[in-house]
Amino acid sequence: RINPARLWDSLMDMAKIGPGIAGGCNRQTLTDADGEGRHLFKRWCEAAGMTMGVDTMGNMFFTRPGTDPEALPVYMGSHLDTQPTGGKYDGVLGVLGALEVVRTMNDMGVTTRHPIVVTNWTNEEGARFAPAMLASGVFAGIHTEDYAKSRLDPEGKAFGDELARIGWVGDEVVGARKMKAMFELHIEQGPILEAEGKTIGVVTHGQGLWWLEITLTGKDAHTGSTPMNMRVNAGLGMARITERVHQIAMSHQPNAVGAVGQVFVHPNSRNVIPGKVVFTVDIRSPEQAKLDAMRAEVERAAHAVAAELGLGCSIEPVGHFDPVTFNPDLVRVVRGAAEKLGYAHMDIVSGAGHDACWINRVAPTTMIMCPCVDGLSHNEAEEISPEWAAAGTDVLLHAVLEVAEV
Amino acid sequence: RINPARLWDSLMDMAKIGPGIAGGCNRQTLTDADGEGRHLFKRWCEAAGMTMGVDTMGNMFFTRPGTDPEALPVYMGSHLDTQPTGGKYDGVLGVLGALEVVRTMNDMGVTTRHPIVVTNWTNEEGARFAPAMLASGVFAGIHTEDYAKSRLDPEGKAFGDELARIGWVGDEVVGARKMKAMFELHIEQGPILEAEGKTIGVVTHGQGLWWLEITLTGKDAHTGSTPMNMRVNAGLGMARITERVHQIAMSHQPNAVGAVGQVFVHPNSRNVIPGKVVFTVDIRSPEQAKLDAMRAEVERAAHAVAAELGLGCSIEPVGHFDPVTFNPDLVRVVRGAAEKLGYAHMDIVSGAGHDACWINRVAPTTMIMCPCVDGLSHNEAEEISPEWAAAGTDVLLHAVLEVAEV
Ligand SMILES: NC(=O)NCCC(=O)O
Ligand SMILES: NC(=O)NCCC(=O)O
Repeated sequence: RINPARLWDSLMDMAKIGPGIAGGCNRQTLTDADGEGRHLFKRWCEAAGMTMGVDTMGNMFFTRPGTDPEALPVYMGSHLDTQPTGGKYDGVLGVLGALEVVRTMNDMGVTTRHPIVVTNWTNEEGARFAPAMLASGVFAGIHTEDYAKSRLDPEGKAFGDELARIGWVGDEVVGARKMKAMFELHIEQGPILEAEGKTIGVVTHGQGLWWLEITLTGKDAHTGSTPMNMRVNAGLGMARITERVHQIAMSHQPNAVGAVGQVFVHPNSRNVIPGKVVFTVDIRSPEQAKLDAMRAEVERAAHAVAAELGLGCSIEPVGHFDPVTFNPDLVRVVRGAAEKLGYAHMDIVSGAGHDACWINRVAPTTMIMCPCVDGLSHNEAEEISPEWAAAGTDVLLHAVLEVAEV
Repeated sequence: RINPARLWDSLMDMAKIGPGIAGGCNRQTLTDADGEGRHLFKRWCEAAGMTMGVDTMGNMFFTRPGTDPEALPVYMGSHLDTQPTGGKYDGVLGVLGALEVVRTMNDMGVTTRHPIVVTNWTNEEGARFAPAMLASGVFAGIHTEDYAKSRLDPEGKAFGDELARIGWVGDEVVGARKMKAMFELHIEQGPILEAEGKTIGVVTHGQGLWWLEITLTGKDAHTGSTPMNMRVNAGLGMARITERVHQIAMSHQPNAVGAVGQVFVHPNSRNVIPGKVVFTVDIRSPEQAKLDAMRAEVERAAHAVAAELGLGCSIEPVGHFDPVTFNPDLVRVVRGAAEKLGYAHMDIVSGAGHDACWINRVAPTTMIMCPCVDGLSHNEAEEISPEWAAAGTDVLLHAVLEVAEV
């Protein structure tokens, strides 16, 4: 079993970097805080005897050698970046849990045939640079590196420039590494495990997603002296489409969600009818047919609302992945580890996207989940118990030991 | 008659200070650009032989002496501040038109019994610091100076600090000046004069307004892994209330308008259900009963939407004035001047708020309007013709000469 106190201390130490304003974290990708977090993680990994490789997307890989120089490594990890008002565990547990697995193996003096690699993927959240899971997406060949590096944050700064600025452009070719397997431990970010009284989620599938960025163009005009029938109100259009996204998701229950998370109103002045609104739609389902249908319905609804208000409307997809089926053999390994360790477990579908969803395209991959309080995530109040963190990490340890061959 | 080319040149010169990004202006109140605009205006007024007074709210007064030292001055003016994406004429025409009136009187060697004062009121727009017409409101005793100086812009900077920073805190007590009359020339900012083929609007009334700032509080949560029935989505609440504001205004046609101009979504991340949204509602009517009814309906609707979504809801009024009736004698003077000069004219109700609406509470006041292209204002594309500007200024000249007694 892993050392729960050591794991928890590392989680709390990392949370001090890029602290939030309400007990959580703001360690957005490629900020100074992200750079600082990477340095701390590097120190810890090197102290645990691992050696670092970094690829040109800033993905970090720390290797614990195996006994067979020919054997492909077993990977485990997640991401250290957070939402602007994020929690202390989303992603971080998967990275520091992986580190704890290696520390435990060192304590026990265990060697494996396959090397073990602990990973931190760059820009999983996609909060600053859409889409999410950007660097694992490049690793898996989903995006070109040029596309990724040219992505802009809301201030117009490019991913590539910001990665260079914080000094984490490595020299490895992205995606060159071959993997025996990849495990990602993550908090559930939803309410199911806690509601069902389970400590471990055996992740069999992940739901698919579309992110659409909608730009509505109307006409800036005076809120007082412009008659109602002369208005071309992009804000009203955004409001109507936001409602329609909600209705569309509701009409596909169960197994569908939809919301508008980000809204930029121009010029955003009390007495100006908004002449332009740019906003993002997030729709998801574990069912391919529903996901496709929802996307079509949202696009149709947006164009219909725009037409009824006389607005210009353009829709740009800024993130997408299809529903995911994780590797059945690795799923069985995880289920077996939870069983052996005596943790209450259940099969579960990931509601969120994860780096594992992309790596699954190029290597046998699966995930392990542990509960979080009230299913709350992407919120500074995100909370887990040290017992849940330890249970997830124990399962990770045993799964990895099995696949890496002690 | 005034000198149309000189007036137009001054308008174009002022527009170069705080230029916009699309041909208009961004000379928001108490910015460096506002300070620069004030200095240019001061140079011009002093070159026209006038002497400056500035009050502690930064209101600027330039006096051309009369022949009777006992006679109360006749005031004319408007504001030099603009919207963030504003036009070149909103407010500016009233200030530089007043200056042109004095320049013309100088050319003609005219003297008046009453002194003439040309005025620039601070923060008419209310875009940066709500409410609008803030400094004329303090002048008229509507707001205390403490209230005004403690108003914050979206970055949290206080009005008082910013006024001091740009160096325009004067020494006059605000509101100490007594007025024989006050005239404000302004572009219509609406479509009526142009549609009716009139060059001059004789402003008899102004519509009343409420600005409400609504804060909805929900729960930040993950857009993917939070089931629809567990969401407390402040963004959805904002969308529903935006639609209701529109419906309420539509249900009070004619003579009512309503819109949401400003929206701040928190944390404003694609994959976070908004936990908080702060947004502003602007509702107006020239009829007191409608205005009161609309306010009550908007507040009821907001609380109802919040209740149906489980959101917290607080509503703060951040701007208000009741419908205005301008001074009938001065209205007759304006109508007579337009008549005498042969300009096509009509009586009109101001759709926007103006400094004249507050000064009307403490002195005989009225307004003169000229058309603007397509009724467009609070838009960088705001446009007027040099002929319209000249006609409005001619009417201002003749009205002021009559009241100031040549
Ligand atoms: N796990 C997680 O929050 N990933 C970010 C991408 C997403 O929104 O699903
Ligand atoms: N004239 C003008 O645009 N004033 C600003 C206050 C308002 O919104 O009516």
